[in-house]
Amino acid sequence: MYDEELTNLMIPGPVPIHPRVYRAMSRVIFGHRTPEYQNLYKETVSLLQRLLQTEQDVLVFAGSGTAAMEAAIANTLEPGERVLNLVNGNFSERWTELTTTFGGTPVIQEYSYGQAVDPERVREALASDASIRIVTMCHNETSTGVLNPAKEVGQIVRDYDRLFLVDGITSVGGDYVFPDKWNFDMLVTGSQKCLGVPPGLCAIWVGSRAWQKIEKRKQPSPTFYLNLLKAKKRYDGFGDSPFTSAVSLMYGLHESLKIMFEEGYENRVERHHRLGRITRAGYLGSGLELLADPAHYSNTVTAVKYPSGITDKEFRGQLQNLGILVAGGQGPVKGKIWRTNHMNICTERDVLSTLAIIEVVLKRLGYEFPLGSGVLAAQEQLLKEKV
Amino acid sequence: MYDEELTNLMIPGPVPIHPRVYRAMSRVIFGHRTPEYQNLYKETVSLLQRLLQTEQDVLVFAGSGTAAMEAAIANTLEPGERVLNLVNGNFSERWTELTTTFGGTPVIQEYSYGQAVDPERVREALASDASIRIVTMCHNETSTGVLNPAKEVGQIVRDYDRLFLVDGITSVGGDYVFPDKWNFDMLVTGSQKCLGVPPGLCAIWVGSRAWQKIEKRKQPSPTFYLNLLKAKKRYDGFGDSPFTSAVSLMYGLHESLKIMFEEGYENRVERHHRLGRITRAGYLGSGLELLADPAHYSNTVTAVKYPSGITDKEFRGQLQNLGILVAGGQGPVKGKIWRTNHMNICTERDVLSTLAIIEVVLKRLGYEFPLGSGVLAAQEQLLKEKV
Repeated sequence: MYDEELTNLMIPGPVPIHPRVYRAMSRVIFGHRTPEYQNLYKETVSLLQRLLQTEQDVLVFAGSGTAAMEAAIANTLEPGERVLNLVNGNFSERWTELTTTFGGTPVIQEYSYGQAVDPERVREALASDASIRIVTMCHNETSTGVLNPAKEVGQIVRDYDRLFLVDGITSVGGDYVFPDKWNFDMLVTGSQKCLGVPPGLCAIWVGSRAWQKIEKRKQPSPTFYLNLLKAKKRYDGFGDSPFTSAVSLMYGLHESLKIMFEEGYENRVERHHRLGRITRAGYLGSGLELLADPAHYSNTVTAVKYPSGITDKEFRGQLQNLGILVAGGQGPVKGKIWRTNHMNICTERDVLSTLAIIEVVLKRLGYEFPLGSGVLAAQEQLLKEKV
Repeated sequence: MYDEELTNLMIPGPVPIHPRVYRAMSRVIFGHRTPEYQNLYKETVSLLQRLLQTEQDVLVFAGSGTAAMEAAIANTLEPGERVLNLVNGNFSERWTELTTTFGGTPVIQEYSYGQAVDPERVREALASDASIRIVTMCHNETSTGVLNPAKEVGQIVRDYDRLFLVDGITSVGGDYVFPDKWNFDMLVTGSQKCLGVPPGLCAIWVGSRAWQKIEKRKQPSPTFYLNLLKAKKRYDGFGDSPFTSAVSLMYGLHESLKIMFEEGYENRVERHHRLGRITRAGYLGSGLELLADPAHYSNTVTAVKYPSGITDKEFRGQLQNLGILVAGGQGPVKGKIWRTNHMNICTERDVLSTLAIIEVVLKRLGYEFPLGSGVLAAQEQLLKEKV
C-alpha cells in the first residue's frame, strides 16, 4: 500500500495544496467575530473579486461547491419556473436535480458526454420558449474535460434577458472567468480545485440582475443557511458571514489567493493552458483518444478513453500502487474513461511523471503501443513551450 | 523564478522530507531536561540502533555530518599518529583535512573520481606500514556516486587490527550498513540524507575497540563539544545529550525512523536500489555517461558526465527554472558532472520526471540524442521491476 501522503493527487480535486496554505491553515485560530478576523475575511473577498475582475458581491460559505450551486438556485428560482439546463456531463446535470428540488421545471438541453454546449442551440431554445427564466451551465465540465463557451452563451442569455447561472468550480483560479464581461448573473465555485485550498469552502458571485430577481421574489427563499440576502446584509454590515465561518479554511484561501497574485493571474492561467497542452500531447502520443471535442478541451482536466480490454479497476489500482491517484468516469462514461487534473500547483513534472507511469501500467495491462511515445510527445510539446 | 517550495530537491541532500516529519517538528517543544523528552531521546537512539542492527552506542549531536566526522577523529586520533585516508572523492578527502587538523599524519591512498576503493590496495598499504593506526573511508561517495566496498575493507582493517572510521552520511537509512558485522569501529551519519530529516543532527556509532582506544588516550581529547566519553556518560546516566539537544529536529528524527520501519527496512533499501537502477537506465538510455565504475554504483546518488558543449551553469539554471534542483560537481569534476539523488521519500515519479525534464533541457542546450530515449529506458526498467 502506497503512502497516502506521498501519493500525487492527479484527480480533478481535491488537488495538491501549496505548503504555504497548509502553514496558513495551521496557525492558531482567532475569534471569528473580531475586527481582526473580519479584516482578513474582507481582504479574502476582495482578492476573490480581483480574481474575477469584478466589483460585485462575492459571498463565501462553509460548504462544498454544491452548496453554492444550491444557493444559486434556491435564491433565484421560484416554484413553477422553467429552467433551461444545458447538460453535457455529470456536473451540469446537477443543476437539473437542484431545479427539481426547488420546484422548478427543468427544460433539459442534452449533449453527449464530450460534446460542448452549442450557443446556437441555446439561442434556439430561448427563442422558442419565452417562459424560460433561468439558464444553467457548467463552465468547465469536470466529468468530461470539456470547456464550454461561457462567453458566447452568456451573450445569448443576456440578449434574451434570462438569468445565467454558471458553475465555475473547476475553472475559477485556473482559467479565464469574467462574470461581468461575459454576462453571467451568478457564478459559483469551490475551494478544492484551482483555488488551491482543501474542500470545505464555496463562493458565489452575484450580479445585479440576480439581486433584482431575488429582491422581487413572491415567496421567501426556501433556504436558511444559504440565504444570499442575509449573507450580503451581514457582509456589508460586518465583513463576515451570518453563520460561523470556517476560520482555518479562510486562512488557507487568503494565503492561496496571495500566492496566485504573486505568480500573476495571466502567468497562472497560461501555466494551466500549457499543462493542458502537454497532457493532451502526451495522451495522444500514446495512441489514446480523448473524450472531449478537440475544439473545446478543458485547460484544467483531461478525460481519456480506456483502450479496449483495460479495466478501470485494474488501471487505477495499479496506478495507485505506484503513487498516483486518478479519477474514473461518471454516468454514461463510468468505466470507459479516466481523468487527470492539471490544476493549482501542478507542474510539468507532475504531468510528465503521470504520463510515464500511466504508460508503464497500460503496457503491463496489455495495451499495445510503443512505450514512451506519449512521454516523448509531451517532451516535444514542452520543448516548444516558452518555459 | 520558480517557487522554492514547489521545487523538487533532487540534490544529494538536503532531500525532500515526509510531511509527517514536518508535522512532528512543528509540535510545541517540551523541556529538554525532562523524563518525557529523555524517553523520546532514548527511543530515537534505540531506533537508530535497530536501523544499524547494533547494540553498541549511538550518540547524537546537534551539528552536521562533518561534526560527527570531527568527533570520530578528534576522539580517537592522538597527535603524530599515521592515518590511512582512502580518498576517492570530495567527502573522503575531508577525513584527510580532519586528520591534519588534529595533528595526525595522513597517508593518502588516492583513487580517481569515479573509482571505488580497492580492498587489495588497502591490504597492501596496511601490510607495508605497521605504524598506521586508523583507516578512514567514505562508504557512499556523494561527490562521485560510488559505493565503496565497506564490508571487504572492514575485514582487512580488522585483520590488521587498526581502527576503521567510516562516513555513512549518504548510506545510512538508504542502503545496507552493518557496522558490527562489517567490522567498523566508528560510523558517522547526518540527518538530511537518507534519514529524512532537515540538516542539523548527526550521529556517531562507536564500537568497543574505538572506546578502548579513546579510554587509553595519553592526551585528553582536544574537543569539548564533541567529547564522546562525556556524551556516553551523559546518555548512560540520563538518556540525553550533554549540551542542549536540538529538540525539534529530534522530534523529526524520531518520526522519520518510525516511518522507515513502517515501510520496512528491507523494502526501503530495495526501493533505493530500484530507484538507482531506474535512474541509471534513464541516463544511459539518453546516451549519457555515468562517472562511477559500473561495479560500484551508489544506490542513493548518481553522477552524470556533461556531454561536451553543455555548461553546468546553463544546465542547472534551466533545470531550476523548470522546478528541479540538481547538484554540480566538486573538486576535479567541478563543471564536468551533475548529480541527482534517489533518497528518502524519492519515488519513481521523481526519477521519471527528472529524467524527462533533463532531456528537454539537454535538447535545448544542443545535446544531440533521440529525445525520450532515456525516459523510455527508465520506463522499460520500471516495467521489469516488481513494483
